[in-house]
Amino acid sequence: MVQINKMLIELAEKRKTTRKFTQEKPSLKKILDVLEIARHAPSGSNKQPWRFIVINDSKVKALIREASEKGEKKFYKTISKKRRLAYKAMGNTWQKPMLEKAPILVAVISDTKAPNYRPSVWLSIGYIILSIEAAGLSTVTYTPSDPDIVRKALEIPDFFQIETILPIGFSADPKRKKPRKSLNELVFKNQWNKLLAKQ
Amino acid sequence: MVQINKMLIELAEKRKTTRKFTQEKPSLKKILDVLEIARHAPSGSNKQPWRFIVINDSKVKALIREASEKGEKKFYKTISKKRRLAYKAMGNTWQKPMLEKAPILVAVISDTKAPNYRPSVWLSIGYIILSIEAAGLSTVTYTPSDPDIVRKALEIPDFFQIETILPIGFSADPKRKKPRKSLNELVFKNQWNKLLAKQ
Repeated sequence: MVQINKMLIELAEKRKTTRKFTQEKPSLKKILDVLEIARHAPSGSNKQPWRFIVINDSKVKALIREASEKGEKKFYKTISKKRRLAYKAMGNTWQKPMLEKAPILVAVISDTKAPNYRPSVWLSIGYIILSIEAAGLSTVTYTPSDPDIVRKALEIPDFFQIETILPIGFSADPKRKKPRKSLNELVFKNQWNKLLAKQ
Repeated sequence: MVQINKMLIELAEKRKTTRKFTQEKPSLKKILDVLEIARHAPSGSNKQPWRFIVINDSKVKALIREASEKGEKKFYKTISKKRRLAYKAMGNTWQKPMLEKAPILVAVISDTKAPNYRPSVWLSIGYIILSIEAAGLSTVTYTPSDPDIVRKALEIPDFFQIETILPIGFSADPKRKKPRKSLNELVFKNQWNKLLAKQ
């Protein structure tokens, strides 16, 4: 018997955030195969409040980059120099070249009329992230600082909301996966702050 | 080569929401193995804003049920009779016996001081849901109508937030998985409402 649980953990462990991609274009068929998993996710009252725009047109990518960077510039003006430098050390600035350079973007959009739409859509993004890795592709969950600017640029009605833009392609990002906390620090037993590990 | 992408989709497709469980208790080791996957999820600024309380004590389960139902009763008073009947048809009432009858509960808690804490934690819940299925277990993502009542009952500090309570066990729920929309209805190409399927 194949140990699906072991394979799943290994997949999640191997997966890392990618902001640089090779020029190779994944086919639209491959992107649809990746998104197929989202259909099967649970959602509040089974409303399936997720929509996707698959973008491979350079003009639309440039538009999304421009709209996103407009929001980022506004955001970076509101934060302290210290925080800005901390972000820079992590490789984050207001500039989002990946939105133009990734071969494919997938905009994940939520229907704000559905109950619990944000949790539902983000749970499905968890599915998609693993599915992207399983397909040998890479991504980063870019959440625009001002999603409304991007929504308007894409002429999406205002009761929908941009949750993330996923730049997708084959990784050319040399960065290593950031370290993670041990489960021993994160899991309590029967009450807050009573570590399970210490039992 | 094992086709991990195919196995992953099959896992998501097979997985369904479960509100009734057998009496068999999964070991705490098995629950920790299931949660292991969450550590590897991406999160805003890598803050890993998730915490977990694994609950197998009946008194704590009863406390959580009571606190949750208090919030549900309040919520059900605010909705129309029509909506209440629609919920009932889906098997939802203010009563949450699964919180007491499931052998294990896992409370998933977010650190509200972290950037983008809700999306990050719900993405990790997507990972966990698949991991529960891969381990042969079942769950439902129960989101309390008033999570603050539950947080207070568990004496959790107020800058943390209950995102979901996962009742976990072996399924004894005969309900079938609810139907899902086809990807053809959900995926657009390069612009809003321009179906990819129609290309």
